[in-house]
Amino acid sequence: MHHMSGTQWIKKRRSHRTYRSDVPAEDVIRDILDCGRLAPTARNVQPWLLGAVTDEAVRRDIARLAEYGRFIADAPVCFAVFVRADEKYFMEDGCAATMNIIMAATVHGLGTCWVAGHKKDYGEEVRRLLGVPKGYTLISLIAAGYSDDRPSPKKKPLEEVTFRDRCGS
Amino acid sequence: MHHMSGTQWIKKRRSHRTYRSDVPAEDVIRDILDCGRLAPTARNVQPWLLGAVTDEAVRRDIARLAEYGRFIADAPVCFAVFVRADEKYFMEDGCAATMNIIMAATVHGLGTCWVAGHKKDYGEEVRRLLGVPKGYTLISLIAAGYSDDRPSPKKKPLEEVTFRDRCGS
Repeated sequence: MHHMSGTQWIKKRRSHRTYRSDVPAEDVIRDILDCGRLAPTARNVQPWLLGAVTDEAVRRDIARLAEYGRFIADAPVCFAVFVRADEKYFMEDGCAATMNIIMAATVHGLGTCWVAGHKKDYGEEVRRLLGVPKGYTLISLIAAGYSDDRPSPKKKPLEEVTFRDRCGS
Repeated sequence: MHHMSGTQWIKKRRSHRTYRSDVPAEDVIRDILDCGRLAPTARNVQPWLLGAVTDEAVRRDIARLAEYGRFIADAPVCFAVFVRADEKYFMEDGCAATMNIIMAATVHGLGTCWVAGHKKDYGEEVRRLLGVPKGYTLISLIAAGYSDDRPSPKKKPLEEVTFRDRCGS
């Protein structure tokens, strides 16, 4: 998607659930994590721990736990976003890092899919599996890989979901 | 920031709280809302209502309510993200739209600042002020405008907040 200009690539991003098997280069994975690190964060607390899992056995274990993330087993990389749950804005911070990871992966030409982590029974199990310290809670898993599928879910028109100044005026 | 390539602009984004007075063009505002509309959303529900407020009186009213968003009065535009609170993943969806708005504004050369909406007493008052129907809850306010300030909050190093495969291994 490198050829896209302006905000085109933001608008073209869709959730991809099938991937080619080639693993993104190490500097690409590192750059994506770096973008997660630099996401907006309330009061600059940066209460996150961001993982990138390429190890196949670990990915398979995650996929077994995440009932809507079985495809993580076949994604060459899975990012995991944890935040300290005692921070008031932990959801905002965790979702901001998640989105920066998704955006950066998109810029690097990867397809991604956000798999829920918060409010899921398996959050604690994934935390233990990945050796993340107690006190951190899983916000999201992001499957990523080069993808050939072209999903096109129906989106609501602009007029239906946006307003100027005051709603309905 | 149009000249930035790759993920540079994701990494260079910072929160800006002072703005020039010139109002972004209508097609820029519309494109930013369009990016919000196309954010990832759990099960494709798209439970959001995204507003752009340029009207000065309305912005002043918002600024009066938001104790950490007084600068909204002097931002040429303020975006507001609402979601249907009865959706299980309303926080994720609302934060995803917020981030797409911030990203798009950044691509268009605007400075932004995410002002918390959820868990704030003023959420309901802002909802009524903007004429948004009951059942929607405020997730965020995003002040935006061209900005000359160059904030540089200290960020934790990559090694401190990221890991590969398993944490601490």
